[in-house]
Amino acid sequence: MQHIVPPHEIEFWFELGSNYSYLSALRIEHLAQRAGVAVRWQPFLLGPIFASFGWSTSPFVLQPQKGAYVWDDMRRQCAKYAFPWQRPSVFPRSAILATRVALHGARAPWIGDFVKAIMRANFARDEDISSEEKVIEALRELALPAMAIVAACQSAASKPRLREQTERAKELGVFGAPSFFVGDQLFWGNDRLDDALALASSTRLRSTSGA
Amino acid sequence: MQHIVPPHEIEFWFELGSNYSYLSALRIEHLAQRAGVAVRWQPFLLGPIFASFGWSTSPFVLQPQKGAYVWDDMRRQCAKYAFPWQRPSVFPRSAILATRVALHGARAPWIGDFVKAIMRANFARDEDISSEEKVIEALRELALPAMAIVAACQSAASKPRLREQTERAKELGVFGAPSFFVGDQLFWGNDRLDDALALASSTRLRSTSGA
Repeated sequence: MQHIVPPHEIEFWFELGSNYSYLSALRIEHLAQRAGVAVRWQPFLLGPIFASFGWSTSPFVLQPQKGAYVWDDMRRQCAKYAFPWQRPSVFPRSAILATRVALHGARAPWIGDFVKAIMRANFARDEDISSEEKVIEALRELALPAMAIVAACQSAASKPRLREQTERAKELGVFGAPSFFVGDQLFWGNDRLDDALALASSTRLRSTSGA
Repeated sequence: MQHIVPPHEIEFWFELGSNYSYLSALRIEHLAQRAGVAVRWQPFLLGPIFASFGWSTSPFVLQPQKGAYVWDDMRRQCAKYAFPWQRPSVFPRSAILATRVALHGARAPWIGDFVKAIMRANFARDEDISSEEKVIEALRELALPAMAIVAACQSAASKPRLREQTERAKELGVFGAPSFFVGDQLFWGNDRLDDALALASSTRLRSTSGA
């Protein structure tokens, strides 16, 4: 599927339970602003993507050696970026309601703050982000109409949106998180955020993809 | 298994058929020299490691989405580093004799040049690195006694060494390539080479692991 992101934009495909998405969620706004690039937040669920590969859960759980490594790596990466870090006692944590809220607010000015609030709860304070209470708490701390937003996201009309969004991720070839789209190119992993932003802000992309 | 690499050293665990090992093989000598760190070359085979996870080949072959991504990523990474790149028509390429020679010469002054010659043949010129001819050619271009080295590596006494080396990688928790050990810590992937070298050259490591 051909997918072309407009010049000076980056699509940030992330999952709230993904530890490497946490690193990118905390980095992307500042870096994108500096690069003159707009961020399009694209929350989705990794579970159905992994299931399509025949995996019952995260590869960090299915492969014990890689899993053990990942927590060392996260500790070092968070130290490098000076981000708070606490290894979640439950991994991967499900966050379906929070993801529905993020999808609902993906173009709202509060999207970045909401995503960071949920991710800090998971990865800096080891809190249960699957609960309705946690989502309401995060929205209230942003002075948002929490009950109205949660009700909208729990409506029958709203529920298929997340399924469609995750289906779209699959069709676009997204196989992990975080993933970034710039122009017609996919970048995978927090380690590629800088390269993706460099391309998004480059003259080359502007001239080839038009405007 | 506790494994402690001496201060100011980095162990570079690589496989000659691994494309991300290629990036590190071309980068490590210059970066390590600048950091004041000695490189210990540790060639091994990924196949038996992958087999221990129940995989018949590289995850880049087993997962088509990731595989498609990896070749885009390699093209961009090589462009970024200004390294020559041609996608191998056979992947992953077996290079057992070349790996035996690399293990044989791991402490020799020619190890870096030999590894780079084999990897450039595979990843810059799409040549068959499994053949004895290719190994002999690479050794001769380095003005080395090619026939004697190859004969030594094909002797019955030499063959168990590579099996033991790969077994050691497994025991150390190596699950992919390239991997780096610094002090008592494992780093995985070309994207972690800079972090690994920063730790290897740091005062912190020197003071904690003694000398």
